[in-house]
Amino acid sequence: MLKPPLITLLTDFGLADHYVAAMKGVILGICPQARLVDISHEVRPYGIAEAAFTLGQAYPYFPAGTTHLVVVDPGVGSARRPLLVQAQGHYFIGPDNGALTLPMDRDPGHVIREITAAAYFRQPLSGTFHGRDIFAPVAAHLASGVPVAEFGTIVGDAVRLDLAPAKYGEDGVWLGRILYVDRFGNLVTNFRAADVPEIAEKRFKMVIGNTETSWYHPSYASANQENIFIIKGSSGFIEVSINQGDAALATGASAGTPVTLRLS
Amino acid sequence: MLKPPLITLLTDFGLADHYVAAMKGVILGICPQARLVDISHEVRPYGIAEAAFTLGQAYPYFPAGTTHLVVVDPGVGSARRPLLVQAQGHYFIGPDNGALTLPMDRDPGHVIREITAAAYFRQPLSGTFHGRDIFAPVAAHLASGVPVAEFGTIVGDAVRLDLAPAKYGEDGVWLGRILYVDRFGNLVTNFRAADVPEIAEKRFKMVIGNTETSWYHPSYASANQENIFIIKGSSGFIEVSINQGDAALATGASAGTPVTLRLS
Amino acid sequence: MLKPPLITLLTDFGLADHYVAAMKGVILGICPQARLVDISHEVRPYGIAEAAFTLGQAYPYFPAGTTHLVVVDPGVGSARRPLLVQAQGHYFIGPDNGALTLPMDRDPGHVIREITAAAYFRQPLSGTFHGRDIFAPVAAHLASGVPVAEFGTIVGDAVRLDLAPAKYGEDGVWLGRILYVDRFGNLVTNFRAADVPEIAEKRFKMVIGNTETSWYHPSYASANQENIFIIKGSSGFIEVSINQGDAALATGASAGTPVTLRLS
Repeated sequence: MLKPPLITLLTDFGLADHYVAAMKGVILGICPQARLVDISHEVRPYGIAEAAFTLGQAYPYFPAGTTHLVVVDPGVGSARRPLLVQAQGHYFIGPDNGALTLPMDRDPGHVIREITAAAYFRQPLSGTFHGRDIFAPVAAHLASGVPVAEFGTIVGDAVRLDLAPAKYGEDGVWLGRILYVDRFGNLVTNFRAADVPEIAEKRFKMVIGNTETSWYHPSYASANQENIFIIKGSSGFIEVSINQGDAALATGASAGTPVTLRLS
Repeated sequence: MLKPPLITLLTDFGLADHYVAAMKGVILGICPQARLVDISHEVRPYGIAEAAFTLGQAYPYFPAGTTHLVVVDPGVGSARRPLLVQAQGHYFIGPDNGALTLPMDRDPGHVIREITAAAYFRQPLSGTFHGRDIFAPVAAHLASGVPVAEFGTIVGDAVRLDLAPAKYGEDGVWLGRILYVDRFGNLVTNFRAADVPEIAEKRFKMVIGNTETSWYHPSYASANQENIFIIKGSSGFIEVSINQGDAALATGASAGTPVTLRLS
Repeated sequence: MLKPPLITLLTDFGLADHYVAAMKGVILGICPQARLVDISHEVRPYGIAEAAFTLGQAYPYFPAGTTHLVVVDPGVGSARRPLLVQAQGHYFIGPDNGALTLPMDRDPGHVIREITAAAYFRQPLSGTFHGRDIFAPVAAHLASGVPVAEFGTIVGDAVRLDLAPAKYGEDGVWLGRILYVDRFGNLVTNFRAADVPEIAEKRFKMVIGNTETSWYHPSYASANQENIFIIKGSSGFIEVSINQGDAALATGASAGTPVTLRLS
């Protein structure tokens, strides 16, 4: 059997309104064989950084050749450019606002195109919903086999967010922050587990806002249900957690909260 | 490749309970090739008007031949009829309560059938879940190629909601109302942009409940982030918005709030 | 046409985070033809009993041969076993914590395997996300045709929850409880409608926490909109409902609330 083309969708449209369905209808009208997978539509409205994080955690698990539609687009209808990015063997389509930062950061050989081929857009083009009128049809035509170069020429730069990992400071203290809070209240930091492998074996003190912890656990279940501890999260970052509890609630921390780490 | 049959689902069942999955399981047991797309399951419980609006905004973007399951069904188990409507090249299946108003209003040549062919229902038929027992299996058999006439005979009428657009009053004031509030707090009015094309160029005053605005913007991003303004929305209606803000919160308006427009 | 393999997903991951998408990406990388259907991802965090109920209400509507992924996994990374259960012609994959109770209870011929074949796991295996690293790839390989015996040997027992139906007491009073509250506020009891068929015709008194009712209705719409009544629910259990109202709100009852029934 032929592999059906795979398109993922990541937006801040929510699931109550008709917006996501309109995009899917447009895609399936152009490319009936496309397989559609939702990454999330619950990104906070206008939450570009949140979308960038979520995309970065999800896309690597899809097969090469997947097209990822990323539409968090407060600038819709303005001069911000529609982009088609190739990176790590995947395609990324969305407005030029930083949501595509992580695939670009991770693949120095990425190629960025400005989408200009209006022949592939829905007409008339609205001023408020380019997800439906530009990004969805371009993704569908790409998935149908239209060569990537048809959609626009290569451009040299794109908006990028600073999603840098935690840094080691001169005074022996690592400085980082909370990147994301998940449904369970786990606080995902920007400390890469690979950068601090000794954390599992050495004494340390991590300070998250007004809270501190010196506990590390290899699994949630190995901690008792009161302690705030750190754990190597599934995304490769250190997370702050409570076994069957909510660390965000317990600490008051949220995306952006500073985090320091001292190893001893 | 053959085009797989396409079935959309629109309900007030929410996404936490098993109801939507039970319908999908029934469909895929009958028609394994069917492609299923959720329009929304977050319609307010018993929100027939909300379902009618959402359906009307979503179905035109799907290819002709699509079957739309619309199950907001407070009358389940009563004498209300199960319907199969053909309009604008699409099929619509659901209880006779007004949720299918827009495709009927838009296509004078629509055909309404009362679904009576119990051979296509799940047995035993429950008194509380016809989405699973009647509407899902009928949609699946239709998608599998059973001719539409097999499901019941043509009837002449169906329940319709008044979803009329805003009207021009004798005193030079247009009278309308808010139809829908989306996730971003955009207030979708029932003013068709095509009826008031001069709004983009002339002076006007729109009053929404206790709020008024004289601002028009062609895109969200061209407004500053404090002003309440109007914009031509993606569904063809005038919307009341705030750039990266929530106009519903700022105005206190909601579905049903009266709106007037005076052009000068 | 060949029937595509069908995999359902039931988790407490929510729809905002990237977790569900990561699982789907892994599955489609291994088995591109798999059809994925969400049962629910809105199970309360760590809500094993809620997952067990939801699974039990959904899986029977899927065709035989379907694989059901059930990942509510507070014990991830601990010694709890990953299981693959065959029951009623379906496959169930998830941690050994009771969420798979109902298919096992319903099919005395069920077969339980401990999943041990690490060759089918993602590497490196995380300590926090076996949904992605063990359960999703095993489901995908199973759906791709790997024989079930490849994943591990048969074991004799598994964790089971007490999901017993209401019992008839010596004093002529049935004793039960609320199993589940749905989006509409319907209270699903553990009284099987088949055990109390006379309820539709005889006088009775049901006490739910501090509320009592003596009303039975065959459909929601046949009740007026104030009365609390009981009805034969779509899942085969007696439910406590209000026509277009919220019985959970009106009674204060929730999962676990005791329910008694006296027939006269």
